Amino acid sequence: MSANKAAANKGPAKAIYRRVALIGIGLIGSSIARAARAARVAGHVACWSRSAATRGAARRLKICDSVHDTLAAAVKDADLVILCAPIGANADLAKAIGPALKAGATVSDVGSVKEAVLRDVGPHIPGGVHFIPGHPVAGTEHSGPEAGFAELFRQRWCILTPPKGADPAALARLADFWRALGSKVEIMDPAHHDRVLAVTSHLPHLLAYTIVGTVTDLEDHLRQEAADAGHVIGRSEVVKFSAGGFRDFTRIAASDPVMWRDVFLNNREAVLEMLGRFTEDLSALQRAIRWGEGDKLEALFRRTREIRRGVIEAGQAGTFKPTEEKKR
Amino acid sequence: MSANKAAANKGPAKAIYRRVALIGIGLIGSSIARAARAARVAGHVACWSRSAATRGAARRLKICDSVHDTLAAAVKDADLVILCAPIGANADLAKAIGPALKAGATVSDVGSVKEAVLRDVGPHIPGGVHFIPGHPVAGTEHSGPEAGFAELFRQRWCILTPPKGADPAALARLADFWRALGSKVEIMDPAHHDRVLAVTSHLPHLLAYTIVGTVTDLEDHLRQEAADAGHVIGRSEVVKFSAGGFRDFTRIAASDPVMWRDVFLNNREAVLEMLGRFTEDLSALQRAIRWGEGDKLEALFRRTREIRRGVIEAGQAGTFKPTEEKKR
Repeated sequence: MSANKAAANKGPAKAIYRRVALIGIGLIGSSIARAARAARVAGHVACWSRSAATRGAARRLKICDSVHDTLAAAVKDADLVILCAPIGANADLAKAIGPALKAGATVSDVGSVKEAVLRDVGPHIPGGVHFIPGHPVAGTEHSGPEAGFAELFRQRWCILTPPKGADPAALARLADFWRALGSKVEIMDPAHHDRVLAVTSHLPHLLAYTIVGTVTDLEDHLRQEAADAGHVIGRSEVVKFSAGGFRDFTRIAASDPVMWRDVFLNNREAVLEMLGRFTEDLSALQRAIRWGEGDKLEALFRRTREIRRGVIEAGQAGTFKPTEEKKR
Repeated sequence: MSANKAAANKGPAKAIYRRVALIGIGLIGSSIARAARAARVAGHVACWSRSAATRGAARRLKICDSVHDTLAAAVKDADLVILCAPIGANADLAKAIGPALKAGATVSDVGSVKEAVLRDVGPHIPGGVHFIPGHPVAGTEHSGPEAGFAELFRQRWCILTPPKGADPAALARLADFWRALGSKVEIMDPAHHDRVLAVTSHLPHLLAYTIVGTVTDLEDHLRQEAADAGHVIGRSEVVKFSAGGFRDFTRIAASDPVMWRDVFLNNREAVLEMLGRFTEDLSALQRAIRWGEGDKLEALFRRTREIRRGVIEAGQAGTFKPTEEKKR
């Protein structure tokens, strides 16, 4: 935040990378483009997108200095290349850009799973090019270049997971870049990252997707029930009364379908383990409800309240989301 | 909303009830007090709380015209009595206030479960007193008289579940009262209410409580894992990286423990049924992840996105929460 302000107040900041190439220009890619411009930390921002429609949108929005139809043209001469596509696309993208990368360049990404990125991208990075995977823990339920905004990374963590033997100078430079976009930077072991994120992000998304699916299936059933009771249902009751808790799940369950498919496929072991722990606990609660064990329920509900205080104290309770605000 | 504005702009509104008594003055009770005053729809707002500390807070905050130490004094001469305590307290409260109720008065409540309220409160309501249970589908994760605010019910639904044979005039008057507080009013069969809310509110809360509990238990484990990998963990990593989805669950799981214990104990059948449907669906997704069935995952994730659009179109996507905003 202070970096952005400094740039805005004191004229041109020193570019951290002369040329940055964004491979994919959706919510995250386009937010990096906007934030890099706002913080003046890239001399030139180039981008590529697989889809002609998205390239068209990027051109129309004027969020990059150049929009390219081919991967080779996009990464040519780039000092920093960031893969901003769904994780499942990384292997093919890395294979395609490998030969076109400049010596001394850094390749990074923004994927929510890190061991898979090391596995898929690592082998295609030529000698003399640095490879430092990254994960900005930030996002909204919206997708596409129109959904991005410069403030997305402010006060959010960006986790970098350098492979063993990564160049310290290249790592420090990438960390500086993310800090300039407003992020706090954490260095983490890739396997540990995948387990922490399985808990804090992947499992919550899986539960949200599931409950929203369950509810969709239930709708017709409830509608019929209401009709039998003589009520006329004008609009989905579940949507109507969603303010009681369900609406928070619908927000998460509106996240990008392809991105999340790839997350679950690529962090399978950690997600399944956390899911196993969760379902054990859910079964215990189910039993407490069935047997009317109010003290057990209350004890858990008191314990979980404390965690929220921690989230608020850590400054992670809210996201700066101008696109959401505008819609209200 | 328009009612509030009209009241503010055009001088005194016509009081819908001469005297309103709030039994319990926590988040919901104190919000009713504030909203009723803002909309000038109650000639006098009296309140009672079980705890001396809460009565003291209500006096200090000056949100009611009178604060009473006894139930009989609070409900004396009241035209509308609203039970605003956890559901489990209703039977005792109703028994205590029954003899002190004025003929022609209306008794209502704000509980999240309606069949249990009919069962617990109904038998204690004397002849000549109207009994119309209600449920404002609104709230925050904060509790107590300090947490309430006049705008809590704006644009939110209030569901009224009159028993068979309820007086139409008393029902219409109560509906007018809630509309004056900014709510949209829906009349519903109590059993149907309990099933709809089991889906839109009780199940989401149960999942949120469970996952936050699971994660708390996991923390020590993850911390040890990180230490083994040579990292120093300064603060809970789970809290730190909660912006990836977990934080939305921590908000819900910070809701009032006693209120929610009573909800689950009193809507057991509907909650267990919805939970059964949910766990079946979760098992199917778990299997899809284990077997790498990406198409199944993506198909569900696309379907759930549509539901969010419905929530936004229904105007239920955000809550007006000045207390939250102030904290940021």
